[in-house]
Amino acid sequence: MTDADAAPGGVGVVVVAAGSGSRLGAEVPKAFVQLRGRTLLSYAVERARGTRGLVAVVLVVPEDYADPSRLTDLGVPLGPDTVIVVGGAERTDSVRAGLAALAVDPRIEVVLVHDAARCLTPPTVFDRVVAAVAAGADGAVPGLAVIDTIKVVDSVGGVTGTLQRASLRAVQTPQGFRAEVLRTAYASGHQATDDAALVERAGGNVIVVDGDPLAFKVTTAEDLERALAALT
Amino acid sequence: MTDADAAPGGVGVVVVAAGSGSRLGAEVPKAFVQLRGRTLLSYAVERARGTRGLVAVVLVVPEDYADPSRLTDLGVPLGPDTVIVVGGAERTDSVRAGLAALAVDPRIEVVLVHDAARCLTPPTVFDRVVAAVAAGADGAVPGLAVIDTIKVVDSVGGVTGTLQRASLRAVQTPQGFRAEVLRTAYASGHQATDDAALVERAGGNVIVVDGDPLAFKVTTAEDLERALAALT
Repeated sequence: MTDADAAPGGVGVVVVAAGSGSRLGAEVPKAFVQLRGRTLLSYAVERARGTRGLVAVVLVVPEDYADPSRLTDLGVPLGPDTVIVVGGAERTDSVRAGLAALAVDPRIEVVLVHDAARCLTPPTVFDRVVAAVAAGADGAVPGLAVIDTIKVVDSVGGVTGTLQRASLRAVQTPQGFRAEVLRTAYASGHQATDDAALVERAGGNVIVVDGDPLAFKVTTAEDLERALAALT
Repeated sequence: MTDADAAPGGVGVVVVAAGSGSRLGAEVPKAFVQLRGRTLLSYAVERARGTRGLVAVVLVVPEDYADPSRLTDLGVPLGPDTVIVVGGAERTDSVRAGLAALAVDPRIEVVLVHDAARCLTPPTVFDRVVAAVAAGADGAVPGLAVIDTIKVVDSVGGVTGTLQRASLRAVQTPQGFRAEVLRTAYASGHQATDDAALVERAGGNVIVVDGDPLAFKVTTAEDLERALAALT
């Protein structure tokens, strides 16, 4: 079975853009920080739109940004397949709001959840995640090998363990799931910063596919410089 | 007690520059790749030399590079305190060779082991590591909070667990130790890619101090670009 044979009925992507930008020191929410005159969100949505089989895009934004004309002015590519919803207090609430907006569309069999701060994630990563779910996984996440040794520390920085690096993956987004699996996981009411962890906790099988260095998360001013360098 | 009061008798640093550069696609060993006309090793040694209390520097290099005049031509700052030794087949062998060269100097109470590929690590990081060992730790390593969620995978990429990110640190070099603690740990004959793990295994207490984004490891061509951007 090839990836094309395995193509699902339809893909919906939830782009989460409701977080604050406190570590960037910006006065606007992180997804609305500018990079070469465009917002991080506009780069993220543009790339997400390249996903094969995409039928719906949900943008989860702060209340102040929920006006389509404002988003258009900020360079965010909207379309007839786009739904704008207002985010909640925590990331989990925002994702839940996005999932609710997708739930009304019966065509959607695979849901991707993507952080707008990973704004340069290439469409090929989206496609790999979808292909893995279409091939039978409950969930799939992009991940990279870990370069640094990872240690576990206690509350005062004392090392309590060193992990086997070869078995670790630093995971990125988009994370993809069979739609009903993610809905069920979110119905549990648990909070999570990582969607796949909710699915794992519910017993779902999640696999890691190849991520991409370009899918890094913009968190600090240095990350913005890195994104700028990647665009030039 | 201030850091200055806690200053140890003497600090020796082993700079490991014996690795290959296969992931960089370079024709020379990684530490000898050029960045703005200078080798990574020359940046690493220059910064290591800023460590307070430093009395000896050991450079562990491939056999072809063990000639002082060649290293000088490559911009590596040598001095009367510098010893050049030839590295071994594995990193552990190289560190062991470096430690042997330091063992003859009775002034040295703290040993730092540093990877030349972390060539932009600022002197302040070296000082923090030394201060933590001087204050009583068997070992100290610089580390940063982990941005990406870290998952544990099996041999085919299936997720077997998601780690509690808040308790993880991505560790860098230099790693510092009380000299006799590190010698004893290395005497065990175990192999390790992480020196602190040998000390932990031997029952030593190791703490994580604040690392620095500039202490990243140059592994890929993109990392070289990042280093270049940091220098400009």
